[in-house]
Parts: sequence; structure tokens; C-alpha cells
Amino acid sequence: MSKAEELGERKIIKLILNCLDQMPNMPVPFGDDVSAVDIGNEKLAIIKTDMLVGKTDVPPRMTLRQAARKTVVMNISDLAAKGVQPIALLASIGIPRNLTKKDIRQIGRGLNDGAREYNAYILGGDTNEASDLVLSCTALGICEKRHLMRRNRAKPSDIVAVTGFFGKTSSGLKILLEHFFAPPKLRRELVQAVCVPHARLREGLALAQTQSVTSSIDSSDGLAWSLHEISRASNVGFLIDNLPVASEAKQFAKIHNLDSAELSLYGGEEYEILVTIKPRLWERAKKAVEQVGASLIKIGVVTKEKALLLKAEGEKVPIEARGWEHFKTV
Amino acid sequence: MSKAEELGERKIIKLILNCLDQMPNMPVPFGDDVSAVDIGNEKLAIIKTDMLVGKTDVPPRMTLRQAARKTVVMNISDLAAKGVQPIALLASIGIPRNLTKKDIRQIGRGLNDGAREYNAYILGGDTNEASDLVLSCTALGICEKRHLMRRNRAKPSDIVAVTGFFGKTSSGLKILLEHFFAPPKLRRELVQAVCVPHARLREGLALAQTQSVTSSIDSSDGLAWSLHEISRASNVGFLIDNLPVASEAKQFAKIHNLDSAELSLYGGEEYEILVTIKPRLWERAKKAVEQVGASLIKIGVVTKEKALLLKAEGEKVPIEARGWEHFKTV
Repeated sequence: MSKAEELGERKIIKLILNCLDQMPNMPVPFGDDVSAVDIGNEKLAIIKTDMLVGKTDVPPRMTLRQAARKTVVMNISDLAAKGVQPIALLASIGIPRNLTKKDIRQIGRGLNDGAREYNAYILGGDTNEASDLVLSCTALGICEKRHLMRRNRAKPSDIVAVTGFFGKTSSGLKILLEHFFAPPKLRRELVQAVCVPHARLREGLALAQTQSVTSSIDSSDGLAWSLHEISRASNVGFLIDNLPVASEAKQFAKIHNLDSAELSLYGGEEYEILVTIKPRLWERAKKAVEQVGASLIKIGVVTKEKALLLKAEGEKVPIEARGWEHFKTV
Repeated sequence: MSKAEELGERKIIKLILNCLDQMPNMPVPFGDDVSAVDIGNEKLAIIKTDMLVGKTDVPPRMTLRQAARKTVVMNISDLAAKGVQPIALLASIGIPRNLTKKDIRQIGRGLNDGAREYNAYILGGDTNEASDLVLSCTALGICEKRHLMRRNRAKPSDIVAVTGFFGKTSSGLKILLEHFFAPPKLRRELVQAVCVPHARLREGLALAQTQSVTSSIDSSDGLAWSLHEISRASNVGFLIDNLPVASEAKQFAKIHNLDSAELSLYGGEEYEILVTIKPRLWERAKKAVEQVGASLIKIGVVTKEKALLLKAEGEKVPIEARGWEHFKTV
């Protein structure tokens, strides 16, 4: 009989989903960034839960306060990708017996940090004894049905764009987990990208107002994986001709003779928003994001043909459907 | 520096709460059965999260399917105590590497069992690798603000009542954890009370409609603890003169020369609703619960004096503020 470690996270999710009765008229399908409930008056309640486990999800040097903050940010990022303001969060915490009073306070402060940065509050939760540190958060937001950004409406010729550059976290994780070298300033920036991630909430809220977005996803499973998710949901392909590689990732790749495209496409734990935009509303979308002090980077175009291709130096290479997955790393 | 194991769950919760900024105008205070967000139109979104950890919360002989179902029921019970219909649940699951495909399906089925029994659905969740089995659920419901049953409005002379009898789960846990003997039929019933608990949702929904309830709480921390919670929140005392001891708990206590009052007061993991009722509306409340096929048992009266007393055989003995608590049992 297959064990969890052989199945991998995505097969496990499928096994569980197959056991569940499906709510009639689900406003958002299973497997999307968030779940939604119709609450009348053309509004939806949006909920999301995401868990962080000390053993597998907290790299060395990440503090407890950072880990707790990150758990909140992970959840808020999913709401951001749908264009939904988080209002409240709950936190269920599994606490190993040897954590100190100070450790527990650090967790409380980190949860509060994450919520308050995005104008939300922690409203309650639950604590339990556990072998691992377990931080499970749930975020709640309310939105107008028509403002919710979806995954399944990307159309050929739509512009593909992201809210930031990629590759910093996969570089940072190589430093923290595999002891790769980087000069102090670069090291600090790459480690910071892992330990203190930011959700693109202002960007998501601004984009949702423009009605220009045909699909949207949080890139926390990696850029390549996120492109594949939209490809599946919208039944389209992509031609990416401007891979958004962070300059820090380029520097890091150069030092170690790594492929910076690889670092940017197949990382994860990056909380950018990936969107597709109606071409005639591109300027409106771009301006809306600029007005909140950020930028929207055009990286390619949606294609009718379902292939996912990266155009670099004249050549077109396929973008593979891989990214980070629990259980898959031993 | 104190460690979690010395602090105990309630001090840990306090440490964390002290780190949190409080949302202005919280419709329900910290530490209540549920959390709430005002969503306009005189409505509240009600959310609750509760986690079950294999190592500490799943006794031997409880199946994975039962454990998953119970996690859902625990959350629904809290909504029931507030008079709120659960609509949707999310489940975050920490999965040990050695769980099999069959185990994972059992978890999926148990989650679905729990939700569907109460006319709710599992809408999504998250899976992670963990050392322990961790099941963290969040329930969402929407209610009219005026229907929400609270903890802080009990008044002297109100009638104290519960939706069922107590002591079965503490007896069942003695069988499962301490290998106490019971004849087969009794054993089956007591173990069933632990492994297949029921939330009093119909009762809670019926009571909420009557406008007769001045305070309400889910009894999962034990009857004594729940009385103390209402006492604190409403600034009242109790005189309990009809302790609702289950006949099965009496039988079990007799075999082992135990105190059945002790089993009933200081247990836990029991999902009855404890309410206080305006005396002039008692008949209305009783009838409402009977109309959904259940019963409301009068157990005592609210007193102005803040003492919590149990009247038995002419004597009055204090009801202590103790119940089950994580970290406190080694």
C-alpha cells in the first residue's frame, strides 16, 4: 500500500477531494487559492487556510516570530490574488512541550505582525500540544461577487503579467538549506526574501477594481506551476518572452554558475500575483498598480495553443509543470 | 524560563492574546466559543477553528475516520452553542509520512461525514507533512446579529439547563486510556460517546429562535468549567440541584466505586449545550427543543452571589474551576 511519502502532496489532496461531497453552486471550485460561500446581496465570504509545520516549512535561521508572521502572510497572499481584503484570521497552534514563554510570545507577536501589516486582526484560535511546531491560519474576507478575480477566464492574446521579480527565495533557500555562499549584502537580501515575505495585497485590491483581469493566482507554488494552473483552469497556453528574474537571483546564479531562469521558474514560497489582462485594459491595470506604489511587469502573452513556452535568445523551450511539493523531498 | 509543559494551555492562550491588537468593536470577545465579524445588514460571519493532534487527542481504538469526523464535530458544536448553522469548513491536515493511501481516504471520509451530518460542506484545505497526525478545521456560518447566543447575559433567577446527560465520555476515556473494565454493552456505549460525539446543532438553532436564552456555551471543556466560564462572563453564580448524570456513567461509577458526580462535572469532550433561560420563557425554550426531537434538562438556577454550588443530599458543595487542559497531563 502506497505511503504518504511516496504519494506526494498533490495525489494526497486528490485522494481527499475524492471523498468529499461537493457543495452545489460553489462560487469558486475546489483547488483554487481560496474557498467561497455566497452570502447574498451579491457578496461572497472568502476563506482560506494554510498550515506551516516547523520541521518541513521553517528553514534554519527563520525566527519563530518570522514563522508565525509568514503563516499569516501566506493566507493573506491567497486573498490578495483574488482581490479580497482580509478582515480576520484565526490561528490554530500546535506547540511542542519544550517551547518557552518567550517562544510563545514570539509566536503571538508574529501572528499580530502579519495581520496588522495588512489591516486585519487575529480574532481567535486554538492551542494544542504537538511534537512539531504547527501553525495553521485561516483568513476571512468579504467581497463583491463581481470583483473576485478567478483562474479560468484567461483568453488568447491576453497579456501575462506579474507584480514582482522571481528567484530570490529559491536562492535564499539554497543559502539556508544547502549552505551556498553569498556576499553579506546579497545574502541578507536573499535570506530576507525567505524569512520576511510580503503579500501583494494592495496590488491585488487595485487590480480587482479595474475589471481588467481575466485570471489571477498567487505564485507561492512557483511561477511555472502557477502558469500551469491557469493553463489548466482556462484551457489556454502561454508564451513567456520576458522572464521576470530578480537581479539578486542573477547575481547569485552567476556566483554559483546556476541557471537564473531555473531559480525563477521552479522555486516557490514567492508571493507575487500572476495575472492575465485584457489587452485593451492593460494601461488601466498598469496604472492602478502604479497608483499603489508598485509595478506590473508584462512577461508574455496568452496563446490558444495549450503549450507553455519560454522564449529566450530566439529559442522556445517548454516550461515544465513542476514546483515545490510536500513529501517529495526526503 | 517556563516551558509550555509547565505553563498549561490556558496560560499559553493568555500569553498569545496579550500579543494581539484587538479589533475595534469585536462582536464577540476573545475567548468565546467562536469569533465574529460584522458583515453589515445586521449580520455576522461566525468563524471557529479547533485542532486535533493524534498524539494527545486521539485515544487508542478511535479510527482515523472517527478522528477526522470528530474534528469537524468539535467545530460545529461551537457554532451550535451560538445558534449558528455551519455552511462551510476548511481542513488543514498534517500527515505523517507513513500514513497509507487507505488512511488518507479514511481521513477524507471522516471529514465529509462530519460536515454532511450537519448539512455543511468541506470546501477546501491544506495538506502538509508532519510528525504527528494534525487535523485542524475551521467552520464558517452566517447569522442574524440578534440571534447570536452569548455568554454574558445570564441574570439571577434564570433557569440553568443542558441538552443532555454527562459523564459518558470521562467514563469512556477511563476505559480507553486507563483500561478500566465495563461489561460489553456498557463498554460499547461509553466508547461510542468518545469516538462518535454529536453536536447539538438542531437544539442550538431551535434555542436561538426563541429569544429566551441569556447565555450559552458548548460544554466541551467539561460541565464545571463551562459553568465557571458563564459565571465569569455574566458575573453571576449558580446553584445546581439536579446534576445531569448519564445512567451509563452511574453504572460505570458503581462498578469501580467512583463518584459519578465527579465523572459528570469534571470531564470534557462532551458536546452538550449549557444555557441559561429567562424563567418566563422556559416553556417556550423547552418546547422548541422538544420540537426538534430532543430535550432540555433543567439543572439549577442562576444566583446573584458568585459562588458555584452543587446541592446534593441537602448539602451544598462548591463546583471547582477545573476540567481537561492540554499540557497538564504528562
